[in-house]
Amino acid sequence: MSEFFQKEIKLKARPRGFHLVTDEILEQLKELRHFKTGFLQIFIKHTSAGLTINENADPTVREDFESHFNKMVPEDQPYYKHTLEGSDDMPAHIKASLLDTSLQIPITNGKLNLGTWQGIYLCEHRNHGGSRKLVLTIMGEK
Amino acid sequence: MSEFFQKEIKLKARPRGFHLVTDEILEQLKELRHFKTGFLQIFIKHTSAGLTINENADPTVREDFESHFNKMVPEDQPYYKHTLEGSDDMPAHIKASLLDTSLQIPITNGKLNLGTWQGIYLCEHRNHGGSRKLVLTIMGEK
Amino acid sequence: MSEFFQKEIKLKARPRGFHLVTDEILEQLKELRHFKTGFLQIFIKHTSAGLTINENADPTVREDFESHFNKMVPEDQPYYKHTLEGSDDMPAHIKASLLDTSLQIPITNGKLNLGTWQGIYLCEHRNHGGSRKLVLTIMGEK
Repeated sequence: MSEFFQKEIKLKARPRGFHLVTDEILEQLKELRHFKTGFLQIFIKHTSAGLTINENADPTVREDFESHFNKMVPEDQPYYKHTLEGSDDMPAHIKASLLDTSLQIPITNGKLNLGTWQGIYLCEHRNHGGSRKLVLTIMGEK
Repeated sequence: MSEFFQKEIKLKARPRGFHLVTDEILEQLKELRHFKTGFLQIFIKHTSAGLTINENADPTVREDFESHFNKMVPEDQPYYKHTLEGSDDMPAHIKASLLDTSLQIPITNGKLNLGTWQGIYLCEHRNHGGSRKLVLTIMGEK
Repeated sequence: MSEFFQKEIKLKARPRGFHLVTDEILEQLKELRHFKTGFLQIFIKHTSAGLTINENADPTVREDFESHFNKMVPEDQPYYKHTLEGSDDMPAHIKASLLDTSLQIPITNGKLNLGTWQGIYLCEHRNHGGSRKLVLTIMGEK
């Protein structure tokens, strides 16, 4: 029979950039082991930081993400009107929508069914974004 | 016990641009209040308009989104082959895939558990897109 | 009463580009017809290929996607540090995060409730990506 489980957690503050947070999330989700099948939703309650799933091994992948997103969504463009909150703010909103506000990951036998090279990234687009709030929702069968 | 609820709704036609539609969706989803926990999926049945979650307060954020997406995915590129439906068509398809075809939002105590600054955007990429169809699906516990 | 169904499938190897795979997935998901309502999640277990939903009719749309993504996320940029796996590798990771790692599609009366023009794309970003693994999870009512 299917069941729902939901909790809110916080991720510690991180500098601007792409950060692997799979372990920090799983440490706060011990309930996962009880679900045989289903999926986990991770939802970030912010509009200037995002989530994505990508390569979990080489840290330079995350550095290249930051370099490329800064080129693709540059600061201080002449057409930006929303500038009061700093030059990192409007690009942060755009980057957040290019990446994900929520991730949905299948659960199989009490674990996230990720590929070998997949990890969860927090994409922090503000220079000083502070701690970030997540809502974790599991829908599954025990 | 978990239950499913599903309905199709229409959003009224809007001009090209990014539009806050949280209230227009919630007005057509009175059933939400009965769900204690779970999540809402919003699925758009189109390939030239999309959805995203972003800043719900300052209208210039939505204007800057439109400016930036027009720069990042310009019209009339020499490599476009799909041009018969107008110069806004192929960029509309690409923008739709850069943003979201579906949103999944956690439900907590009968309400969408959005962050303070989060709202739902309809991203209308056609000059004359017309009314847009959404499928709303709730999975949750009452 | 809600039920979960889950299986892993493989998509055959394809060349770099955007490919319509709706039929290849549905042929391996005969169980879909038993679900009256709910939704299907399609999750790709890779970080250099992605999924999206877009136009299912004109093949030049998929060609234009490939052209535009190659321009928006070019190879051989001077700021790339992750270069050991070939010049198509780092752009592949970035493209994968710009598109989707998972799709969620509503189910209505035993069928995917897609719009008339919507199809499922495999977005193959490597020159030789090989076969790609998907996890299919249905949550629904029979």
